[in-house]
Amino acid sequence: MITHITLVLPQFKRGFHIITDHIEHACTEHLGTLPQDGMLHVFIQHSSASLTINENADPSVRVDLEAYTNKLAPEREPYFIHTYEGDDDMPAHIKASLYGSSVTIPIMNGRLALGTWQGIYLGEHRDHGGSRNLVISVVS
Amino acid sequence: MITHITLVLPQFKRGFHIITDHIEHACTEHLGTLPQDGMLHVFIQHSSASLTINENADPSVRVDLEAYTNKLAPEREPYFIHTYEGDDDMPAHIKASLYGSSVTIPIMNGRLALGTWQGIYLGEHRDHGGSRNLVISVVS
Amino acid sequence: MITHITLVLPQFKRGFHIITDHIEHACTEHLGTLPQDGMLHVFIQHSSASLTINENADPSVRVDLEAYTNKLAPEREPYFIHTYEGDDDMPAHIKASLYGSSVTIPIMNGRLALGTWQGIYLGEHRDHGGSRNLVISVVS
Repeated sequence: MITHITLVLPQFKRGFHIITDHIEHACTEHLGTLPQDGMLHVFIQHSSASLTINENADPSVRVDLEAYTNKLAPEREPYFIHTYEGDDDMPAHIKASLYGSSVTIPIMNGRLALGTWQGIYLGEHRDHGGSRNLVISVVS
Repeated sequence: MITHITLVLPQFKRGFHIITDHIEHACTEHLGTLPQDGMLHVFIQHSSASLTINENADPSVRVDLEAYTNKLAPEREPYFIHTYEGDDDMPAHIKASLYGSSVTIPIMNGRLALGTWQGIYLGEHRDHGGSRNLVISVVS
Repeated sequence: MITHITLVLPQFKRGFHIITDHIEHACTEHLGTLPQDGMLHVFIQHSSASLTINENADPSVRVDLEAYTNKLAPEREPYFIHTYEGDDDMPAHIKASLYGSSVTIPIMNGRLALGTWQGIYLGEHRDHGGSRNLVISVVS
């Protein structure tokens, strides 16, 4: 059995943001509870933002990851030809593919089987990315 | 219910290529239609090519992503020891792991729930990679 | 039908390690055989280690991938603020997101449908990461 839930995230500024609660809340709202055993898949319907899993505790991880990512994929590279949507656009496409468009997490005993220190991150790679659309799929 | 479809892609030159149509065509040919609700998983059976999701419109994104990727993982790094399969080989392995071997996309209302601007990319990271084998899995 | 298997890996030193046999052994031990058709998902419950798929043959690929990865995400970057868990910690978080927390592989004819040269890699990104917990999910 597969249930899809569409979720429009609030606007986030450029950077990495923990969205585990947004996702769990959307599941609870639509399903009541998660199945005892299943899989959760979260997909972002955009090519300039990403989803990844990383530390859910110290916010400095998110700060450093954003700083690193901006150095890894800098703006205004002289060889870029996809430039007409702004300096932040082509680096955002690169970051979207490096970090990926979806995450898959097991559901065990009615809960996401994340490790103690893991959370789901939105990577917002545009300066003004607006609201981002997710599709949450629960397979059981 | 899980259906696997094997697909041999035509040979592509080194770079990023949109293969959404190849995948949808293979599904239609084998299944008639996609299920109303399900998940699509595409897996590449090679360690020197990758699958990722990115912009399906302006081809300049693919050109810039390839140029960036070649700078990110350059050939002939002095410390490489895996060199006997050619200068393009070890960078191809690196790129395969950075971008990943599979993509998972929800199926809603009988269609891939890609965003308006999203397409499935093959990352061909070898100079002469030949035909690449995919396994398409439809879960419903 | 979804079966989850928890697996505690032995401690591995920093670097990339093939763990295909560990995963297949855990599946055999818990399930007897893999289903004829299905999907295998492997999830790592840590934010400083990763899972990826790459060449299963020549060990030099793993050596070069580790050397490359250490250059890609170096220690002691002057702008890092997440530093109190050791020099290897923030780079480990970065590598975890670049390579990813899970892999998904089709199961066909009762076997993992990996390509001839593909294996499942653990990326151990800490100097002393200890034992790592995996959740293996078999969907059929």
